[in-house]
Amino acid sequence: MTTFQGVIPPVVTPLTAEGELDKASYQRSIDRMIDAGVDGLFILGSSSEVVFSTDTRRKEIVEAAMQAVAGRVPVFVGCIDTETNRVIEHAKVAQELGAAALVATAPFYALGGVAEIERHFRLIHEAVPQLPLFAYDIPVCVHVKLPNDLLLRLGQEGVLAGVKDSSNDDVSFRFLIDANNKAGHPLTLLTGQEVVVDGAYMAGADGSVPGLANVEPTGYVRMWKAAQAGDWATVKAEQDTLADLMRIVLVTRGVQGFGAGVGAFKTALALLGVFDTNQMPNPVRPLQGENVEAIAEVLREVGLPLARSAEEVSAATNWEK
Amino acid sequence: MTTFQGVIPPVVTPLTAEGELDKASYQRSIDRMIDAGVDGLFILGSSSEVVFSTDTRRKEIVEAAMQAVAGRVPVFVGCIDTETNRVIEHAKVAQELGAAALVATAPFYALGGVAEIERHFRLIHEAVPQLPLFAYDIPVCVHVKLPNDLLLRLGQEGVLAGVKDSSNDDVSFRFLIDANNKAGHPLTLLTGQEVVVDGAYMAGADGSVPGLANVEPTGYVRMWKAAQAGDWATVKAEQDTLADLMRIVLVTRGVQGFGAGVGAFKTALALLGVFDTNQMPNPVRPLQGENVEAIAEVLREVGLPLARSAEEVSAATNWEK
Amino acid sequence: MTTFQGVIPPVVTPLTAEGELDKASYQRSIDRMIDAGVDGLFILGSSSEVVFSTDTRRKEIVEAAMQAVAGRVPVFVGCIDTETNRVIEHAKVAQELGAAALVATAPFYALGGVAEIERHFRLIHEAVPQLPLFAYDIPVCVHVKLPNDLLLRLGQEGVLAGVKDSSNDDVSFRFLIDANNKAGHPLTLLTGQEVVVDGAYMAGADGSVPGLANVEPTGYVRMWKAAQAGDWATVKAEQDTLADLMRIVLVTRGVQGFGAGVGAFKTALALLGVFDTNQMPNPVRPLQGENVEAIAEVLREVGLPLARSAEEVSAATNWEK
Amino acid sequence: MTTFQGVIPPVVTPLTAEGELDKASYQRSIDRMIDAGVDGLFILGSSSEVVFSTDTRRKEIVEAAMQAVAGRVPVFVGCIDTETNRVIEHAKVAQELGAAALVATAPFYALGGVAEIERHFRLIHEAVPQLPLFAYDIPVCVHVKLPNDLLLRLGQEGVLAGVKDSSNDDVSFRFLIDANNKAGHPLTLLTGQEVVVDGAYMAGADGSVPGLANVEPTGYVRMWKAAQAGDWATVKAEQDTLADLMRIVLVTRGVQGFGAGVGAFKTALALLGVFDTNQMPNPVRPLQGENVEAIAEVLREVGLPLARSAEEVSAATNWEK
Repeated sequence: MTTFQGVIPPVVTPLTAEGELDKASYQRSIDRMIDAGVDGLFILGSSSEVVFSTDTRRKEIVEAAMQAVAGRVPVFVGCIDTETNRVIEHAKVAQELGAAALVATAPFYALGGVAEIERHFRLIHEAVPQLPLFAYDIPVCVHVKLPNDLLLRLGQEGVLAGVKDSSNDDVSFRFLIDANNKAGHPLTLLTGQEVVVDGAYMAGADGSVPGLANVEPTGYVRMWKAAQAGDWATVKAEQDTLADLMRIVLVTRGVQGFGAGVGAFKTALALLGVFDTNQMPNPVRPLQGENVEAIAEVLREVGLPLARSAEEVSAATNWEK
Repeated sequence: MTTFQGVIPPVVTPLTAEGELDKASYQRSIDRMIDAGVDGLFILGSSSEVVFSTDTRRKEIVEAAMQAVAGRVPVFVGCIDTETNRVIEHAKVAQELGAAALVATAPFYALGGVAEIERHFRLIHEAVPQLPLFAYDIPVCVHVKLPNDLLLRLGQEGVLAGVKDSSNDDVSFRFLIDANNKAGHPLTLLTGQEVVVDGAYMAGADGSVPGLANVEPTGYVRMWKAAQAGDWATVKAEQDTLADLMRIVLVTRGVQGFGAGVGAFKTALALLGVFDTNQMPNPVRPLQGENVEAIAEVLREVGLPLARSAEEVSAATNWEK
Repeated sequence: MTTFQGVIPPVVTPLTAEGELDKASYQRSIDRMIDAGVDGLFILGSSSEVVFSTDTRRKEIVEAAMQAVAGRVPVFVGCIDTETNRVIEHAKVAQELGAAALVATAPFYALGGVAEIERHFRLIHEAVPQLPLFAYDIPVCVHVKLPNDLLLRLGQEGVLAGVKDSSNDDVSFRFLIDANNKAGHPLTLLTGQEVVVDGAYMAGADGSVPGLANVEPTGYVRMWKAAQAGDWATVKAEQDTLADLMRIVLVTRGVQGFGAGVGAFKTALALLGVFDTNQMPNPVRPLQGENVEAIAEVLREVGLPLARSAEEVSAATNWEK
Repeated sequence: MTTFQGVIPPVVTPLTAEGELDKASYQRSIDRMIDAGVDGLFILGSSSEVVFSTDTRRKEIVEAAMQAVAGRVPVFVGCIDTETNRVIEHAKVAQELGAAALVATAPFYALGGVAEIERHFRLIHEAVPQLPLFAYDIPVCVHVKLPNDLLLRLGQEGVLAGVKDSSNDDVSFRFLIDANNKAGHPLTLLTGQEVVVDGAYMAGADGSVPGLANVEPTGYVRMWKAAQAGDWATVKAEQDTLADLMRIVLVTRGVQGFGAGVGAFKTALALLGVFDTNQMPNPVRPLQGENVEAIAEVLREVGLPLARSAEEVSAATNWEK
């Protein structure tokens, strides 16, 4: 199996004002990240609005991504759904469409325990054994933290190829990295953070999956290369700049969760001229008015050149869609 | 629009040992509940393993239920999925197949707020305005409690027809009942509890959706009739007996959540000869061995006649499926 | 040991505008509840602002309560603090001052497990074996639910005399009542609810500890007597009226938690002329202005005669204290 | 006001087998940390078993610490209790006994909101304005996260002098550091972590409060000096070694929370001959048997010389005390 490392952004999905997949913007954004030197792309993750997407839309996203990427970098595909059989359906589609690796969370909605989580990953791997399977540890969404000892055991048995850690529990992730190293590094360990990636690299992470890399991929690529070279002063400097940019998720008012986070990424991409709109999937509304202006102000402060004004971005979306 | 009231059990879905929908058992169970006098049935709710079911399986369940019911009682259909567009897909299928009412939870997995919840219900109702829409308040699964003032407002505007309350917050439900009465009773309010239904009826609930009614529908029907007649001593006596039976979800060991709850219902139904197996959907394992025996013991204690032994039930399922 | 049952209100603690204990108001309120026929009083519980009170203030409250009660009813004393040794200190003071029973929560702040909870109750009972010890199950404050099997076991061993259930988990409480009855009723089981007491009595609770009984004790006394007589229609009617009154905790705006709950009780008592002020302990501010008016409006709607206007109540407190 | 920075360990409190404060061990441990070059000490924090300690014990701990320190480094004193007035009592005692700074959490047990938290810190500062006040952000114990904008505002107004961050939310802490720098650095920001201190230093933290520094202070001192010098390779190397040692909190079985964490620190200190016992405060039991052996094994693996065997340590404590 291939091993993976480096910067693998979770690709934000552009929509038209009518809520359709905007393939032109998608191509621009993907090209921009690949040109910046990212090591892979992760589609149909949380930031890619996977849980907002019908099966038809999911397939459309994968097909468009594969076409846009055209084999230049490996594509991780999220197979995120409530329970095992639904996840396996998505995994098989992903395999058919050319995924390089699969990414699945713990089961959610129904209550269960560690036994169900373990069997879930085993059954997915049994159903699609040809593809490396990454566990996606995201307790804020699935309301359970994946235990390190389970992850490591499944890694040693070949069920899991790696972990995408979005637990925001950096202490636990540090312990996982160390235990994985002691065990001969069966797992590829990727952090899903944006502003504490420097610490994850110091700890020994194999790479990162930062949503903010949609907005500014070059900094993350430079940070990874500096970490590889042991040039920690550059790692720190790049992380400082990126943390400053990440304020786009803090400066809005009256919005929260996905609408504030991915909403800010889409808005920045629209301001930068990469996306045509900052349209959001139902039931979330796109950012508008002062919130768009606040994000534009951050972009100006960190020196990113705006292609469009806040007013133009607000006008391009459909508030009611 | 029709109004609903009374006992509307959430129908447990029988599987064959191979994990297929067991239509013969389904017919037996549905007949048994309708013969007992239930006022409706709710399929594709949490107890019906909706989140374990692929779209194909969901459709199969609705079709089989409609065929088995054959119009004798109204059928509520759950349209439970992560976000709005996916829910609307399910809602349209349910409408085509003859649902009398739709049931939807708040959106889940992605983080959001009350604004997203409100828009979610509005968009579902706009997409399928012909059918009454019930909000399913189940914070243990979706990790948010539906606010009473939102529910009442959406009821007064005609977006929501009612609420299925599985919040386990009986204080809040009591306040909702009183506020709904003061507002002219725009919402039909159903409790999803099993062992505190007596209190909900005393408070003024319009009915109940008890999973245990799959196992023992006649007691719930008698309790509802007694409540309608103001015969609270009978309500209390029936609830006492049903609470004693509900110990089937407490006596098992080493299992939890859905596997312990719906697992116990399926096991009791298999012991009673209603279901052929107690097979569970992936990744949950069916109850086995001492756990089946413990449930059989409860059934004996409350005087329900066993059609099969614990050993026979354990043997009928597929532990690995 | 004495057994307890019936209505045992958690006594709200009146303060002067300067934040001192207001003994005259305290005497009036205690007399009013005893005259109404309550079966006991519970001081230094959550509603008595125990965790806001220094050790000196706690002692002052117990002494004032004992003097005011003068042996007319048994007095339960809360010994609520973070960990065992601190609780034992409070328990010994309570014993010296004449407590009829002690009430203690699970340890809180430090993280632990069931083993620590069990040893905590055992050590308290060993330190003060002469007094019946009630476990106070209040997960909203201590962030752990006391397991039913632990409670029952400690009851059977004589460590615990009873449970004050403020878990808001009526299903679990119902199961505890049933298991306690099957075990020969070692525990006295009291509900801490206000608006679902009817259901708790139907289930077989031995009594109630409703904060709202500070405001309207007679209704709770009538409800308990009706429950004892099996007159459930009266139970229902009394609960309906009390639930209507309990809206005082819902009608305020911009406040939450203790300030909204006990704040509303104090405000109602001030409007009724029982308390001189609605002063709250630091850092909580007393209700003011429109919030006092909203509570006055509820009192008027349910027919309780106001002794003072909302303006007078607002003026009597010290917003800055 | 003095400014603080560097390594300020939260001092673990040694007990005799009878549960009394062990002043000889305390002196040894404090000398060992000061000799290693720490910049301050923090007593009566969570790790110092503050919430297990009666007021008498708290005073005894402060007095013993002040005597042992003898002015060599500044001493931070925790004033941790449920609500404002109780905290102020502790703060005044701390001031009298020579505290260099005070540390207080948000109020806990009673439910409240941001308004109560803000007023809590203001009232403490008003009561003891002479001493710098640090906010202790520890949601795992008090069940609320202190908002960054509140912290910064209170820093700018001079109410707060700094923050001890034990939130385990490194993203939020990173944002706080950056906002604090943009605002002119009104707050001294200390991380309470052990194994991700490298990342906090990269982000710009002013120092650390690592419990593990009780066991191995020299490594934390070297890491801080390297961070000050911009020698990130050394920072990384020191953190790697310390993370390896921190496995002492992971290798035990059947214990959790405070008993597993501080229990491991005490056990390591007993094995190293710094503490006479690993006795824990009620209701927590000391580690025994295989758990002590597992910790000894980690110490051996990282090259720390054991002064006593696991058997000797197990024998020195009182399992029942």
